[in-house]
Amino acid sequence: MKRLLSGMQPTGSGRLHLGNYEGALKPWIALQGKYEMYCFIADWHALTTMAGSTDSIADQSREVALDYLSAGLDPSQVAIFRQSAVPQHAELAVLLGMLTPVSWLERVPTYKEKREHVERQEGGSDASVSFGLLGYPVLQAADILLYRAHVVPVGKDQAAHLELTREIARRFNHLYATDVFPEPQALIQEMTGTLPGLDADSEGKLRKMSKSYGNCIYMTDSEDDVAARLKGAFTTPTKMRKTDPGIPEGCSVCLLRKLYDADNYTTQWDECRSGERGCVQSKRETTEIVNAMLEPIRERRKLYSSDPAELDRLLKDGAERASAMAEATMQIVRETMKFL
Amino acid sequence: MKRLLSGMQPTGSGRLHLGNYEGALKPWIALQGKYEMYCFIADWHALTTMAGSTDSIADQSREVALDYLSAGLDPSQVAIFRQSAVPQHAELAVLLGMLTPVSWLERVPTYKEKREHVERQEGGSDASVSFGLLGYPVLQAADILLYRAHVVPVGKDQAAHLELTREIARRFNHLYATDVFPEPQALIQEMTGTLPGLDADSEGKLRKMSKSYGNCIYMTDSEDDVAARLKGAFTTPTKMRKTDPGIPEGCSVCLLRKLYDADNYTTQWDECRSGERGCVQSKRETTEIVNAMLEPIRERRKLYSSDPAELDRLLKDGAERASAMAEATMQIVRETMKFL
Repeated sequence: MKRLLSGMQPTGSGRLHLGNYEGALKPWIALQGKYEMYCFIADWHALTTMAGSTDSIADQSREVALDYLSAGLDPSQVAIFRQSAVPQHAELAVLLGMLTPVSWLERVPTYKEKREHVERQEGGSDASVSFGLLGYPVLQAADILLYRAHVVPVGKDQAAHLELTREIARRFNHLYATDVFPEPQALIQEMTGTLPGLDADSEGKLRKMSKSYGNCIYMTDSEDDVAARLKGAFTTPTKMRKTDPGIPEGCSVCLLRKLYDADNYTTQWDECRSGERGCVQSKRETTEIVNAMLEPIRERRKLYSSDPAELDRLLKDGAERASAMAEATMQIVRETMKFL
Repeated sequence: MKRLLSGMQPTGSGRLHLGNYEGALKPWIALQGKYEMYCFIADWHALTTMAGSTDSIADQSREVALDYLSAGLDPSQVAIFRQSAVPQHAELAVLLGMLTPVSWLERVPTYKEKREHVERQEGGSDASVSFGLLGYPVLQAADILLYRAHVVPVGKDQAAHLELTREIARRFNHLYATDVFPEPQALIQEMTGTLPGLDADSEGKLRKMSKSYGNCIYMTDSEDDVAARLKGAFTTPTKMRKTDPGIPEGCSVCLLRKLYDADNYTTQWDECRSGERGCVQSKRETTEIVNAMLEPIRERRKLYSSDPAELDRLLKDGAERASAMAEATMQIVRETMKFL
């Protein structure tokens, strides 16, 4: 069975919205059983942005684990663990860093942007991004290559980072005349449809769901939360009354309905357009549909968060399984580099 | 008892000359019993210059261990181990890298020189030093702080690197409101006298002993090697016959005599000057004195190299003692950073 590696950072509030769920988590669920899966919580990576404020890093890591589990990752099939619990990530990162040209890293667009931003903002010769931020792609390569992963599910915008991992793998294999590291392939995650947020911009156009816009439905929302959020959601501005014609393509409520009621949404769309169905009814129905979709997620979250000791045990078990694979890889690496 | 950390890279042929012995190793011996000592073999650091040619890294590491032991380090008092055998060095390096500004590292003079040299030599945008070379001071800081070392014996030219370690320690302590890391103090190693090589430059001036000049006596030299090297050593060029007046201050043989026969060298110097003693006799006597000095070193090397299994056992034992201290530090670090 081929191996798959994926992960998320425990930054921010730890709350994932439906856009995160659809774009990142849900595709993993479909891959269970098809791959030997390692899903980690990138708590060291989080230090690139929050080295100075780590007070809640353990709690936030547990929240990400709850996100994974509530989305439906099966801990008996998937190793779920914190990066910091498998120190071989660091050992491999140090070794790979020795053969990664610093110019490769300086060229990474996100690094260049961040560095220029910090230097502009803070000025002075001491203003600087961290060595760890520059080395982000090296630690990422270590994360992936440590499990000799064949595939990595990525969003389209992350393909460049994976290309660097592939280059580092090629360089290692070439330098030590080995094929220990498969070149990981990107498993591009295409959402069935883009997920609109619940608001519109100043021109009345829908925007994507994003925490920074505050237009989200969260995986942790209760039934009442969802109802309240949808009640205030952006619909067709000119549909003041039920009988006014609506434009479903420009309405967040109708688009959510389409996503979560793919087989039966057309009647609602037709009646919205024709003025046979009003926004109040559409919102109520979409609320029910979204809540039905979220129900098993809520159930699993309730189950796992009711027993913190069991959650810690699952993470420990995941780390042990990951460590076994990681240590096996490191043993090959140490032998290949002639350290042993 | 305060803790001391020191180390050497297993690069080059692994052979140390008397200059290395006097300048680096011998001072350690005098510190035994005064400090809790950790003397490591920096085999990961060696990758900054030899990542592409690691075939003999294990053998070279064993040679450095033999250098340590033959110089007189007592493995029952001092933990002697390979860096690669204590992976906590990498874990701490990754964490410290997250809070080390990349600008601090780019400013290190040896890095700047190396980088400019490589870019000039190889040209093109792909010519680049490695990320590991840039991060050398971070890994070095991890080496030292992992043992919460109070002192580090350094040559005068290495004081800058230690200053970076102190800055990183201060930053960590400040950021996490802790005093886990003592700021390590430099124990400047002053040789009793500079050690001259056995030759002179084109102007007849002595040069320091250096592998690149080929003017060395090596710790591994046999009695006959020493005799042969001293036979060809540079003396007073105008002292063609025994009765010609010599200039001991400009003679490598007389200077070695002064170093290794500090209490009794004046008679030889006086008689060299006055023409009562010739170079042949002085060389023979200095050969005997150097060989007598090297004898216990040779004996210990013979003892330890005759039993490779015992050497490996000693390194394993040293790594276990180092690991105990390293893991204790990491446990504090993980707690301090709230990973646990």
